[in-house]
Amino acid sequence: MASLNVGIIGLGTVGSGCAEILIKNRELVRAKAGVDIRIKKIADLDITRDRGLELKGIPLVTEAMDIIRDPDIQVVVELIGGTTKAREYAEEAITSGKHLVTANKALLAEAGVHLFELAQKANVCIGFEASVAGGIPIITAVKDGLCANYIQKLLAILNGTSNYILTQMQRHHKSYQDVVQEAVRLGFAEDPPTLDVNGTDVCHKLLILLALFYGKWFSMDEIYREGIQRITPQDLTFADEFGYRVKLLAIAKAQGEGLEARVHPVMIPKGHMLAGVEEAYNGIYIEGDFVGPTLFYGLGAGRRPTGSAVVSDLIAIARRLSSGQREFPYCLGSQPLNNLRIKPIEEISMPYYFRFQAQDKPGVLSKISGILAHYQISIASVIQKGRVLHGSVPIVMLTHEAKESAVKKAIKEIDTLDVVSDATVAIRVEGGEGAE
Amino acid sequence: MASLNVGIIGLGTVGSGCAEILIKNRELVRAKAGVDIRIKKIADLDITRDRGLELKGIPLVTEAMDIIRDPDIQVVVELIGGTTKAREYAEEAITSGKHLVTANKALLAEAGVHLFELAQKANVCIGFEASVAGGIPIITAVKDGLCANYIQKLLAILNGTSNYILTQMQRHHKSYQDVVQEAVRLGFAEDPPTLDVNGTDVCHKLLILLALFYGKWFSMDEIYREGIQRITPQDLTFADEFGYRVKLLAIAKAQGEGLEARVHPVMIPKGHMLAGVEEAYNGIYIEGDFVGPTLFYGLGAGRRPTGSAVVSDLIAIARRLSSGQREFPYCLGSQPLNNLRIKPIEEISMPYYFRFQAQDKPGVLSKISGILAHYQISIASVIQKGRVLHGSVPIVMLTHEAKESAVKKAIKEIDTLDVVSDATVAIRVEGGEGAE
Repeated sequence: MASLNVGIIGLGTVGSGCAEILIKNRELVRAKAGVDIRIKKIADLDITRDRGLELKGIPLVTEAMDIIRDPDIQVVVELIGGTTKAREYAEEAITSGKHLVTANKALLAEAGVHLFELAQKANVCIGFEASVAGGIPIITAVKDGLCANYIQKLLAILNGTSNYILTQMQRHHKSYQDVVQEAVRLGFAEDPPTLDVNGTDVCHKLLILLALFYGKWFSMDEIYREGIQRITPQDLTFADEFGYRVKLLAIAKAQGEGLEARVHPVMIPKGHMLAGVEEAYNGIYIEGDFVGPTLFYGLGAGRRPTGSAVVSDLIAIARRLSSGQREFPYCLGSQPLNNLRIKPIEEISMPYYFRFQAQDKPGVLSKISGILAHYQISIASVIQKGRVLHGSVPIVMLTHEAKESAVKKAIKEIDTLDVVSDATVAIRVEGGEGAE
Repeated sequence: MASLNVGIIGLGTVGSGCAEILIKNRELVRAKAGVDIRIKKIADLDITRDRGLELKGIPLVTEAMDIIRDPDIQVVVELIGGTTKAREYAEEAITSGKHLVTANKALLAEAGVHLFELAQKANVCIGFEASVAGGIPIITAVKDGLCANYIQKLLAILNGTSNYILTQMQRHHKSYQDVVQEAVRLGFAEDPPTLDVNGTDVCHKLLILLALFYGKWFSMDEIYREGIQRITPQDLTFADEFGYRVKLLAIAKAQGEGLEARVHPVMIPKGHMLAGVEEAYNGIYIEGDFVGPTLFYGLGAGRRPTGSAVVSDLIAIARRLSSGQREFPYCLGSQPLNNLRIKPIEEISMPYYFRFQAQDKPGVLSKISGILAHYQISIASVIQKGRVLHGSVPIVMLTHEAKESAVKKAIKEIDTLDVVSDATVAIRVEGGEGAE
């Protein structure tokens, strides 16, 4: 094999990064892959816009099928995003006997089980390093590096936009809305950044990691998710006083056949390695039964880091083909491990942070704590400072482990009290026992 | 292929961990590898000692050659350490057409170039995930995950024993000797832990990482190395006051054909992710030209994490064989990139921390700073507190970037001053620009 011929569908951010690496690092890629990796053709709806790339000699086409049907192309790189056209192209590429490389987490979350089955039948690879945490080689790390372990715990910051927002809110005491507006203006966030902040994007990535861990594709509606939209700078300040940082996390915990899998804001101790993952960085904390605690850190998005991940998949395919491999059963790297079932979040117990917004009157704390006691929710510490905000004061608490279902009922009841002026903010607490 | 047959040479710490995983996680390993991985035979000089393993059915032998000559064994796992016998067994295994898995960094540092050539000729794999940073899948991460990048910078904590010692000294203000004695007593360190604390072990691992980065095996004598034996708790306290932590680091920086590669204690800012890597943990900070900054964290040694790394290599080999691969040119994953040459440390400039032990007399600071000025070493800040220690006071400085050769000359001259009572302690400063 003299070279690997690649067709790229989608010359947006990631497509441009991928092309840039293959052009600029051509010698390096050859030294690593053993063969040349050549871009045979690029498809994009817009073939005139300048991407700052020297594409001389590479044909640009507007029709994705021109790439998929090209008999000289061995690998189709799908980088258009979305799930309709992307799925059509991915399926068409696979059934045409092309290897597929994709950065599309939404596509894998929705159709992973189907695409991997299709790929197995067609005997082709699917490379998806770029689909989770961009520059962090977490797919390889989990699929290959940690493969001797039963993964017992995952705590992961997988969305750079929401981590950037939380970091800015915490550092500069700015409101969620102000930070989002600024991030949109600076081009750091989409307008509006809905899927980034509401947990959907993180959930897509969690589903991919669960498939790698346990060989099974779960579905979106099995995963509880909650975003960061209701967090205030005040909550981040209280968290700081209690010794915590607030992060939007993907969480998985496995024990026997019971699996916790969820996406929501979390308070983690400042001493935990994940607390130091700031700005747009991603951080992935994994505990395996033999390896113990591990952490992987880097940029989760962007043209260059995500391009690096796409090209690593291309190099892997080039190596496989040029070392004579003709069967590709290990794209996912795991057969189903056991009958894991995701526990409803109502069954899970954890410590909680509550911020009640209440009138500054005698007896308020007694009413609230009475309701908590009724639901067996035990208070670990309280801050009540009497700062007046919109005519009400925050009462802030950390609880001991409390059952989610009880917490929901208690909050519902507390929020109907006439001395309580605003919906209660609740943030779950994690990571007390983990790495420093 | 129904199963992969493995022979383990050396049933010490790592060998026991490897066997334990293959036995306890047998189902999981099969789900990940696609086939059974069976321990066909184990060789150790001591075949009677109880390792807390249920080895029923697995023959124990005292002769390593019984494994190497066994025609049913496809992979030889060398876990005896040392470089004499280990090298003999490794060579014999490879030339007998067996794949080799090893945790032996000293062997690879000494004979890597030779063993990989031999393996290429014999068309077998060498797996060495366990040779660097135990549980952190750094070999896979670099070889596969980051392979699209030219690696520009490495800062790495690669020795758990020395990191444990520095952490204890810093936290409890204990002397180097006291901590070492305690660590030896608790079984955390060898007696004496010479290769762990003097930079030799770290240097072995650095050579392996350089081979992965640049496709070239450098030799021990090209790498400047210095250990942690002269660091005092006082230095750690001063470092803390300046906003730094002290770590024993492997460092590599590449620019064009010039390469810095060295092992020595380093002061890094407390905000750098590596500063949070404490106790016996390892942390590896890597910057690639496209991926940007990344960090990998986990346990660098121990039966279970290192066993996990060994088994990941076995699973990789099982996958390759069972997917029909019959050629193995990518064990190292890189051909030589260019004519990289390691710069002598004398040519390198960096900021420095100095602790001078001097008599508490007028004019001392003037004499010292005069000599520094003579060698063009510019002072950034000074602490002189007049605490008397053995009749002398510490004068502590941070410098701006200074050339190593100038620093050596200046210190030599300063140490001959009759007002200076003890050899000057100098610690290089790194990581000002890096990740938080």
